[in-house]
Amino acid sequence: MPDTSLLEAFPTPSDAPFVIEHVAEEFTSLCPKTGHPDFGTVTVRFEPAPARDGGVCVELKSLKLYLQSFRDEGIFYEAVTNTIRDHLATLMKPAWLLVRTDWKGRGGIRSTIRATSGPVPDAWRA
Amino acid sequence: MPDTSLLEAFPTPSDAPFVIEHVAEEFTSLCPKTGHPDFGTVTVRFEPAPARDGGVCVELKSLKLYLQSFRDEGIFYEAVTNTIRDHLATLMKPAWLLVRTDWKGRGGIRSTIRATSGPVPDAWRA
Amino acid sequence: MPDTSLLEAFPTPSDAPFVIEHVAEEFTSLCPKTGHPDFGTVTVRFEPAPARDGGVCVELKSLKLYLQSFRDEGIFYEAVTNTIRDHLATLMKPAWLLVRTDWKGRGGIRSTIRATSGPVPDAWRA
Amino acid sequence: MPDTSLLEAFPTPSDAPFVIEHVAEEFTSLCPKTGHPDFGTVTVRFEPAPARDGGVCVELKSLKLYLQSFRDEGIFYEAVTNTIRDHLATLMKPAWLLVRTDWKGRGGIRSTIRATSGPVPDAWRA
Amino acid sequence: MPDTSLLEAFPTPSDAPFVIEHVAEEFTSLCPKTGHPDFGTVTVRFEPAPARDGGVCVELKSLKLYLQSFRDEGIFYEAVTNTIRDHLATLMKPAWLLVRTDWKGRGGIRSTIRATSGPVPDAWRA
Amino acid sequence: MPDTSLLEAFPTPSDAPFVIEHVAEEFTSLCPKTGHPDFGTVTVRFEPAPARDGGVCVELKSLKLYLQSFRDEGIFYEAVTNTIRDHLATLMKPAWLLVRTDWKGRGGIRSTIRATSGPVPDAWRA
Amino acid sequence: MPDTSLLEAFPTPSDAPFVIEHVAEEFTSLCPKTGHPDFGTVTVRFEPAPARDGGVCVELKSLKLYLQSFRDEGIFYEAVTNTIRDHLATLMKPAWLLVRTDWKGRGGIRSTIRATSGPVPDAWRA
Amino acid sequence: MPDTSLLEAFPTPSDAPFVIEHVAEEFTSLCPKTGHPDFGTVTVRFEPAPARDGGVCVELKSLKLYLQSFRDEGIFYEAVTNTIRDHLATLMKPAWLLVRTDWKGRGGIRSTIRATSGPVPDAWRA
Amino acid sequence: MPDTSLLEAFPTPSDAPFVIEHVAEEFTSLCPKTGHPDFGTVTVRFEPAPARDGGVCVELKSLKLYLQSFRDEGIFYEAVTNTIRDHLATLMKPAWLLVRTDWKGRGGIRSTIRATSGPVPDAWRA
Amino acid sequence: MPDTSLLEAFPTPSDAPFVIEHVAEEFTSLCPKTGHPDFGTVTVRFEPAPARDGGVCVELKSLKLYLQSFRDEGIFYEAVTNTIRDHLATLMKPAWLLVRTDWKGRGGIRSTIRATSGPVPDAWRA
Repeated sequence: MPDTSLLEAFPTPSDAPFVIEHVAEEFTSLCPKTGHPDFGTVTVRFEPAPARDGGVCVELKSLKLYLQSFRDEGIFYEAVTNTIRDHLATLMKPAWLLVRTDWKGRGGIRSTIRATSGPVPDAWRA
Repeated sequence: MPDTSLLEAFPTPSDAPFVIEHVAEEFTSLCPKTGHPDFGTVTVRFEPAPARDGGVCVELKSLKLYLQSFRDEGIFYEAVTNTIRDHLATLMKPAWLLVRTDWKGRGGIRSTIRATSGPVPDAWRA
Repeated sequence: MPDTSLLEAFPTPSDAPFVIEHVAEEFTSLCPKTGHPDFGTVTVRFEPAPARDGGVCVELKSLKLYLQSFRDEGIFYEAVTNTIRDHLATLMKPAWLLVRTDWKGRGGIRSTIRATSGPVPDAWRA
Repeated sequence: MPDTSLLEAFPTPSDAPFVIEHVAEEFTSLCPKTGHPDFGTVTVRFEPAPARDGGVCVELKSLKLYLQSFRDEGIFYEAVTNTIRDHLATLMKPAWLLVRTDWKGRGGIRSTIRATSGPVPDAWRA
Repeated sequence: MPDTSLLEAFPTPSDAPFVIEHVAEEFTSLCPKTGHPDFGTVTVRFEPAPARDGGVCVELKSLKLYLQSFRDEGIFYEAVTNTIRDHLATLMKPAWLLVRTDWKGRGGIRSTIRATSGPVPDAWRA
Repeated sequence: MPDTSLLEAFPTPSDAPFVIEHVAEEFTSLCPKTGHPDFGTVTVRFEPAPARDGGVCVELKSLKLYLQSFRDEGIFYEAVTNTIRDHLATLMKPAWLLVRTDWKGRGGIRSTIRATSGPVPDAWRA
Repeated sequence: MPDTSLLEAFPTPSDAPFVIEHVAEEFTSLCPKTGHPDFGTVTVRFEPAPARDGGVCVELKSLKLYLQSFRDEGIFYEAVTNTIRDHLATLMKPAWLLVRTDWKGRGGIRSTIRATSGPVPDAWRA
Repeated sequence: MPDTSLLEAFPTPSDAPFVIEHVAEEFTSLCPKTGHPDFGTVTVRFEPAPARDGGVCVELKSLKLYLQSFRDEGIFYEAVTNTIRDHLATLMKPAWLLVRTDWKGRGGIRSTIRATSGPVPDAWRA
Repeated sequence: MPDTSLLEAFPTPSDAPFVIEHVAEEFTSLCPKTGHPDFGTVTVRFEPAPARDGGVCVELKSLKLYLQSFRDEGIFYEAVTNTIRDHLATLMKPAWLLVRTDWKGRGGIRSTIRATSGPVPDAWRA
Repeated sequence: MPDTSLLEAFPTPSDAPFVIEHVAEEFTSLCPKTGHPDFGTVTVRFEPAPARDGGVCVELKSLKLYLQSFRDEGIFYEAVTNTIRDHLATLMKPAWLLVRTDWKGRGGIRSTIRATSGPVPDAWRA
């Protein structure tokens, strides 16, 4: 089961604008209907809250173990995406957060889901 | 004939901003003039209405069957695109909807059609 | 000679926002100075006026024949682009129109020309 | 030496919005410190002033000869870019001008320089 | 250790808008936890302050030597990015500065960090 | 049903070595088990028998119509490939023939089938 | 555990040369040392024995289920590759068989393993 | 009409193995049935006969003008390819010659034709 | 210093033909003349001796540590390549071994070195 | 003028098979007819004679300076290629040598020239 206790954070090193992206290309969970495995890529982008406000960043190895905890979970695409967004938003209270999942095709259709929290920072657009 | 009764929806899982894209690369219909087959890709992007407002998402397998129902239909590019947009807008009443069709070339010209409903959400631009 | 009588239009099928792109990769005309052939790609993008306002779309086969009518014409890149923009704007009176030509290199320099009419619609940017 | 007398212009053919891009991939000059050759690509994008205001466009062959006149010049990346921008701005007094140079790597670092004059026109963004 | 004394600057050649990008694809430092080498690409983009305000640009060879000084440093991705941003901001006091690091994958996750100073100039967007 | 009466041939124009490849990217048939559409690309490569031996080439438009005749056929990948190879070998008695089908993925697996007749000619390898 | 009882075969449809390739991009097993998941692509290429000799082909859906049976197996790259080769060679006794596995990187090194049985057929090289 | 008098040759500069390839991406002729333009790329590869045997090479500008002479010719793909091969073989009597034409798609099928003369030299394979 | 004591091997799992490729994209050493860092990719391909002859494979993690031991070594491209080939040939006595190094550009020239031992196996060519 | 006195060599480090490739993407010379600059890429591949036979390799920096010495030379593509092959064959007496030049397009035609000395070694094909 997705295990939020695996997630760890560390204090962000700066007050200045700062955007982090982690791309995990090796994500797998199970289709809750058929039990067949689903494969996808999970992208996490965020601007931490400033250091002066106690901002934190998710720790990379803990993120990896957390994503691995979906391996035996029967769960829909939409739920994967919203669950990760909610767990990371609770952990980090970031200025901005986007979770994007890109799923390999099923029945000739491939899907992408994006869930966000907060406004897109200018630093990302540059 | 395009069969809207094939389309099914399920309740959206979140109130927070949330964008879904389905790309169906295996679309075919018939040219109404010549009867020859047309081939294209249909992309559906939408932000569902929030859960608190009764928002729904189109179900993936039903979308696949619905798109297959154009296989023996004689219909123009523009009509395919507007028909899908209208059917999905009626089904979901989404905050945003874009239907894009990319058609393989005919006579040295390849075409793309985009029909939309509602304003582009910020989450898509990130 | 570019022959506008070849261009035909049909009524646009919708009042809702709607963008069409046709890409013709097989365009050729003649350099008016040297008589040598020029080769390029012509892209036509437009948002038709709404159906309720009598909006029309250029018919695809007529566009192909119209573009072929430049084959023996001695004409500069800039004139090709502005001529097509003017002819299509006259034909369709669209909400938006962009004509873009991409020319293969001459003397180590390759060129792109863009001529527009009306504001870029939001549907194009999504 | 960069020779502005090589540059020629011709009257712009239109009052409507109109953007031109020339990409010269075969640019070379000399490093003023080491005398070794530098290689890069020079991109010139501009919106000419409207025809009614006497707007002009740089002539393509004259641009090629002008760029070749840097071949034996010892000159820094930044100076190449600003020099071309200044010479073309003086020649054309355009509504918008961007000169971009992309340099092949030196010491494991590759560089891009962009110098502009005037606001980016909407036609470029479409 | 990252050695700011290696960094040198020279006066910017222009008052007009002007953006410089240097991409160093051969960056390596050490993981402070495991001691294993990290590999990445460092991109530096900036608009110097105008010449009339005493604006300066970082000198290319000094930037290369400065980046090489991280080779034996045990330092996190986030600290690399913020350190370079801070050092270059102090050196140049630029109108805009973005430092981006792209790291090769670790444990199936690859990361990108962006730190900025000042608003994105229009010249970069064109 | 695959209709061999649609296939037409014309005399090959040469005695010298000569290889022809036709790539049809818009092939569709039906899965005989599920009735769902399959999509693929059919590649036909052949060296006609020499003109002096009465060699013939398949006519392009007849090949297109023949391939379209599989549209409503329930037939496996392997049978499609061997059927086309057999029909074309019977029609042309070529010196060499290869039929290759590339199928879009089903259940996470994409397939390619190659059926041949005669030895690969040297002209293909160059 | 890899379950050979899942594998099914059907009679090959032809005596003529015939090569089949299946590419399964969604393969995952576990590292026997660390327990962490490994991800890779499994490619199976074979020429079945001729129909007259009782040749058979592996059935596509059974191959998918067989490959899924490695999901919870702790097994090295080399053993995965040789195991699949041995199981398929036993099942089909093909004229040629190649099993190739492409693994995503670990510690900055990505690996490919190829195990074969029988000589490469000419049909594959064309 | 294809005009062989346009073709010129010059003595090959060497007795040692030597392979030349010219790729002309801007070829156009007319379909003899419909009169519509065809577009393609013509590739000419050859090993000239050795200088000691009076070997010659086709001159580049004359090749360009010769290829332009097909512009108003109604001629099939196969005839274009064999005609160029025959004309160049007569002109140069080369040790090896390959003429390859790649045609843009018609009716969803794109074609490649290869005509050769003499054995493929080892220098080409390296 | 390149440290062969870091290299470990394990028994090959099969008597049948079997090819392994490891690609290490994160290799760095020092130029022995200038002391500046060199960056490259090291590819190791081999066919182990058969299991019945006591064949062994290099262990992946030990290969990684061995390659890291070049980090502070001043050594030429050619010596890196031949040294790795000699060390691995001594360790494994493989049926075939190829070591390939691809170096990032210096002074506008990028280099590739390939050193081998034994004949290329048929399994690699398939 | 191409200056062979710039070329230097060093003893090859090995008796075992060994192939070196240098790719110089920044080559320029002058057209002897028009005086306009030509741009291309020069690739040099060779297997040095074995160390026991006194084999040597061209030194990289000397190769760069030698190639720069063509900058002001009026010389045809074919002569550039054969001249470099002859100069390097004289310098190194290699077991195999291939010089390949790839020229940017002129008049819509781009060219590649390959000149060789000795048989292609097996190590190159792997």
